[in-house]
Amino acid sequence: MTELSHLKNKITVAGAGPVGAMLAIILSRANYQVDVFESRPDPRAHNVLQGRSINITLSERAWAALEIIGLDKTVRQYATPLYNRVFHETNGTLSEQSYGKENQAIWSISREKLTDILINQAEQEAQVNLHFEQRLTHIDFNSACSSFSYLKAGRTGHKVVDADYVFAADGAFSKVRRLAQETPRFSYSQHYMKQCYIELTIAANKDGSAKLAPHASHLWPRKGFLLMALPNNDGSFTCTLYLNYQGHVSFSSLTNAQAIEAFFLHHFPDVMPLLENPVADFLKNTANPLFLVRVDPWVINNKVALIGDAAHAMVPFYGQGLNSSFEDCHALVKLITQYKDDWIKIFPAYYLQRKQNTDAISKLSNDYFIEISSFDDNIDELLSKKIALKFALKSPELWPSLDHLVNFSPSISYAKARDISIQQKIIMTEIMQIKNIHQCWQEDCVYQKLEKLALAKLAPLLK
Amino acid sequence: MTELSHLKNKITVAGAGPVGAMLAIILSRANYQVDVFESRPDPRAHNVLQGRSINITLSERAWAALEIIGLDKTVRQYATPLYNRVFHETNGTLSEQSYGKENQAIWSISREKLTDILINQAEQEAQVNLHFEQRLTHIDFNSACSSFSYLKAGRTGHKVVDADYVFAADGAFSKVRRLAQETPRFSYSQHYMKQCYIELTIAANKDGSAKLAPHASHLWPRKGFLLMALPNNDGSFTCTLYLNYQGHVSFSSLTNAQAIEAFFLHHFPDVMPLLENPVADFLKNTANPLFLVRVDPWVINNKVALIGDAAHAMVPFYGQGLNSSFEDCHALVKLITQYKDDWIKIFPAYYLQRKQNTDAISKLSNDYFIEISSFDDNIDELLSKKIALKFALKSPELWPSLDHLVNFSPSISYAKARDISIQQKIIMTEIMQIKNIHQCWQEDCVYQKLEKLALAKLAPLLK
Repeated sequence: MTELSHLKNKITVAGAGPVGAMLAIILSRANYQVDVFESRPDPRAHNVLQGRSINITLSERAWAALEIIGLDKTVRQYATPLYNRVFHETNGTLSEQSYGKENQAIWSISREKLTDILINQAEQEAQVNLHFEQRLTHIDFNSACSSFSYLKAGRTGHKVVDADYVFAADGAFSKVRRLAQETPRFSYSQHYMKQCYIELTIAANKDGSAKLAPHASHLWPRKGFLLMALPNNDGSFTCTLYLNYQGHVSFSSLTNAQAIEAFFLHHFPDVMPLLENPVADFLKNTANPLFLVRVDPWVINNKVALIGDAAHAMVPFYGQGLNSSFEDCHALVKLITQYKDDWIKIFPAYYLQRKQNTDAISKLSNDYFIEISSFDDNIDELLSKKIALKFALKSPELWPSLDHLVNFSPSISYAKARDISIQQKIIMTEIMQIKNIHQCWQEDCVYQKLEKLALAKLAPLLK
Repeated sequence: MTELSHLKNKITVAGAGPVGAMLAIILSRANYQVDVFESRPDPRAHNVLQGRSINITLSERAWAALEIIGLDKTVRQYATPLYNRVFHETNGTLSEQSYGKENQAIWSISREKLTDILINQAEQEAQVNLHFEQRLTHIDFNSACSSFSYLKAGRTGHKVVDADYVFAADGAFSKVRRLAQETPRFSYSQHYMKQCYIELTIAANKDGSAKLAPHASHLWPRKGFLLMALPNNDGSFTCTLYLNYQGHVSFSSLTNAQAIEAFFLHHFPDVMPLLENPVADFLKNTANPLFLVRVDPWVINNKVALIGDAAHAMVPFYGQGLNSSFEDCHALVKLITQYKDDWIKIFPAYYLQRKQNTDAISKLSNDYFIEISSFDDNIDELLSKKIALKFALKSPELWPSLDHLVNFSPSISYAKARDISIQQKIIMTEIMQIKNIHQCWQEDCVYQKLEKLALAKLAPLLK
């Protein structure tokens, strides 16, 4: 018996971003022969520090996936823990919201660094071959045979790659998905949000310390737009301004330096002195789009499957894009074990499980933007949150926060987390209908009623 | 001054179906130079009678568009008027529903015949050139320059076509739209319905007479599926069976002759003896998909615009696909006149107006399928219709039927028709909450209340 005969099937992975690299490692360790194709150059050849750092957040779902491939410790060395969200009001008032219980943090890391770590590991796997600068041109969705073009000595070459299965980890603008649109009964939607974003920077102080509280994410929620800042390891912050593409206050209406400066001074007076050249950056940078992708089905002919952003690109407001994609990989490896490499069973189970969960987190991410964009002016909403918080402190096991469910409870699926949060809203609507609730909200009877409702409607979901 | 200098801009139309042909005629008469490109062969070279006839229905919106190009009389010669819907229950009971008032009809015509008439006319226009078997390969969405490939002496040729504007009339599977997906901020969705369809035939009697009432559409609505029949001029009927693609009773589950025969005998006993080889046709024909298309925006860079199914493919249950597409053309010609050929104004107005109206009729078409698929077993629903009908007979101007608004009231937009129908539903929900309504529904007080509600909520919409 040759060494190769121990191998199971051959799998093509399109895309060598963090998801493609993690998937390659997982599949290789499950004893598959994996070829990863990426149209861009090897990112490790670039000097990351020259480019702008894009930050992503990792919470327990991502850590669980990193742990099974043994990379959690390495990644954590380059990540910054965030314990709170800090909300900045226009008048300078700050308020804090913990992500989890004491010492529970989500982690901020540069996308480039994370990708480097994963690609380095993938390269070391015995059964992974990485191919950069090779562009997918065609897939046969019946045979999983795919074609790639590449440049060689200045001329375009082509190659055809046979495989048993193809995974599309080629991101929000997935080429595999675009080709799949012509297969029968492929439902697909790409929906652009009104908002676009640009990135801005807050540099560290000269002594390397941070200009804002360093172990927190910072949010400047305003009616209809939002500024966010995530810390880097070096004391700097990467900021993202989310703003409408068109309309009264928008990227299209703010076209000269004076108007842009007035915009920042009016809406973000406390952060304006900290930002590095926000006006120049605003003028110079093209606003990036935000869009949602929904696909049905994710698996075509039990031969080609979508994973990560290719299947479920979502808005970034809840920081769950990569967490949900790593969870896709994690779920897949569990199913490979459970169904003993029987892909006829693995694929439908993978789709069913991941579709409902990523639909749920995508909706939660949308809702979250709406919530924070209107956060400071609805007094009913504010009271409702106060009551819920008071109850949660008293009975934490009966009233978990959505943050906690999403970030720190990987054993509770996104779909279940959303169901719980919907039930909590229904219950709070009932509580807010108590007569004179704005006067009597601290009285025991309110919390007795709340407990009764939570026991009846929430407890069954939390089992 | 040469003759050409009188011409305004040059326009490329992709697609020579009924919409592309009508658009070419309209634009030519507005003095544009129009080139129409179609990937398929000239349909007039085929013998229509050899193929299966696909029937479409024309109502006043389509007739209004045909009238402005002077083709209404010609088309009507080949069309069959339908005055009623005839519903066939499983037990053989028939019930009728008029489409409009006395002598008002919608018209059934073969798609091929209608296309022939329109293409013949387009060919006769001074400023239209038709190009068949030329396949769109590329569009520059900034310049409206497009590329086509064609076969010549067995080898592929290419040509590049300059124009001022491009219209995509290339149907539900539009190539222009597929290329547009890569332009910035292009939101797009294609959604496949659970149902698919096949076509079946009822031949005429030997003496040429029809086997069913000839001036009506026939419907066999069953829980979750539906059979329809539309008459042809020769006494035959073209039938369409809409059935789930997968599931308990579906195209996938019905795979042998015995099961299919049992299915027809059980659900459609009265029509079974009339159908020509339904079992063989069911086994032989591939089920066609039904899908919805939504696009936002329809106009890219004020250079390339979508029209017809390319912009708003909808389900066919309400027979408004071509009516809405012809209305797109009609609206466009009015805007060309209104804005004196200023496309910077025409395009946004066209998009704004047609998007909201086609969204409305697409939703109404979906709702209609749900309504007829459950039509015979909800007693509240049945009573509600009875009451509305009784009131409509008494005060027709206060309670127009949705059928009438959609089919016979082209001056009322689809969007307004939908608003009216939503208000009618809200009013009827209120009426159905009257105590003992099942006993007292004939009493005057019910109709007094209905009149009061209609005057308050509907009358303003009907102005």
